[in-house]
Amino acid sequence: MKKAVVLLSGGLDSSTTLYVARAQGYRLRALICDYGQRHRREIAAAKRIARKARVPFHVLRIRLPWKGSALLDRSIRLPASARRHVGMSAGSSGVSIPATYVPARNMIFLGLALSCAEAWGARSLFIGANAIDYSGYPDCRPVFYKAFAAAARLGTKTGVTGRAIAIRTPLIRLSKAEIIRKGTRLRVPYALTWSCYKGGARPCGVCDSCRLRAKGFREAGLLDPACA
Amino acid sequence: MKKAVVLLSGGLDSSTTLYVARAQGYRLRALICDYGQRHRREIAAAKRIARKARVPFHVLRIRLPWKGSALLDRSIRLPASARRHVGMSAGSSGVSIPATYVPARNMIFLGLALSCAEAWGARSLFIGANAIDYSGYPDCRPVFYKAFAAAARLGTKTGVTGRAIAIRTPLIRLSKAEIIRKGTRLRVPYALTWSCYKGGARPCGVCDSCRLRAKGFREAGLLDPACA
Repeated sequence: MKKAVVLLSGGLDSSTTLYVARAQGYRLRALICDYGQRHRREIAAAKRIARKARVPFHVLRIRLPWKGSALLDRSIRLPASARRHVGMSAGSSGVSIPATYVPARNMIFLGLALSCAEAWGARSLFIGANAIDYSGYPDCRPVFYKAFAAAARLGTKTGVTGRAIAIRTPLIRLSKAEIIRKGTRLRVPYALTWSCYKGGARPCGVCDSCRLRAKGFREAGLLDPACA
Repeated sequence: MKKAVVLLSGGLDSSTTLYVARAQGYRLRALICDYGQRHRREIAAAKRIARKARVPFHVLRIRLPWKGSALLDRSIRLPASARRHVGMSAGSSGVSIPATYVPARNMIFLGLALSCAEAWGARSLFIGANAIDYSGYPDCRPVFYKAFAAAARLGTKTGVTGRAIAIRTPLIRLSKAEIIRKGTRLRVPYALTWSCYKGGARPCGVCDSCRLRAKGFREAGLLDPACA
């Protein structure tokens, strides 16, 4: 049975990705990264979703001693909706990236997932990156994943011995509504997912992540079960 | 003053790299990764070297819950000298990579260092990789660093806004003897460095890392101060 590692954050996109990979027949292992994010509920959500999907998981704890992001540093104000896209092409100037950007976050996550995949003998790595209804982070764009896959092929034992690990981003070109429709068909337990950047008892409804989620459900013509 | 992050393991190559970067006029910050390696003395050595060089440092603790390397798993025997080079070109088949290979190790380290550099506003990242007198790890080859730099440019805020972080590998094409001669000129405290893969009181003299080091000092016509 083909094996794959899935990066699971507990949000809508990564949870859908887990179910997409499962539906494709992969034997899965989920990697949950606890990197000191202010929205701690995400980690609890990720664990619940992995258990619900009966997928074994690792929780990896990393404490970055540097800040530089509103998601790590409570002294930086979370933007209500500072979303501006950097565009799909690289090297564009005059771009604006929101304060919630965490320096090199997906690079770190992918490196850890690559290590997990290689040690376990998995040939694929899934990540729920999306470059349509997203916050404008550069590490969510297809060009980045293509470049990362090339580095992974050249820098790993499996890569140089001709069995490179594929980096799979099944949601990257879907709208949020399309992701939600796909996930609903696959019975993703959206009631268990957590998208809000704040770690409160209920989603704030105001942050960029909440707005993208609400827009997705609205456009999909569905009710968000997490808000029921 | 130009700033740079240096990955410091406490071994000969990374310590030389720290001094090379300092001699080039950079204001430095060292990143020491405690990833559960069996040669725990390396971390103590790295801290001592950073203090000696008066370079502030971060020690980052990561526990990979998967094994798959003789450096992480004491049940795997350390090879005495299983060194076989994978060659400088990519994709060669029939290659043999030693049991001390840690899946995606340098990818993880580089991701963390990239994050540190971006958060701190450094424009360069130094790593003491070497592809001449080395153990044959794929993530020590120039092709990997070139590919990583491309991914880093495309996946970071600094990269897409036109101020990409440079990945500097000043030792990559030097022999071990050339590295030692260069470091000796720069007064690298080699007596404090630790190369042995085993964590004993003294270097074993038998493992691949000890052999490469001994060969380097011999060819440089110098005595190893750590063995005095």
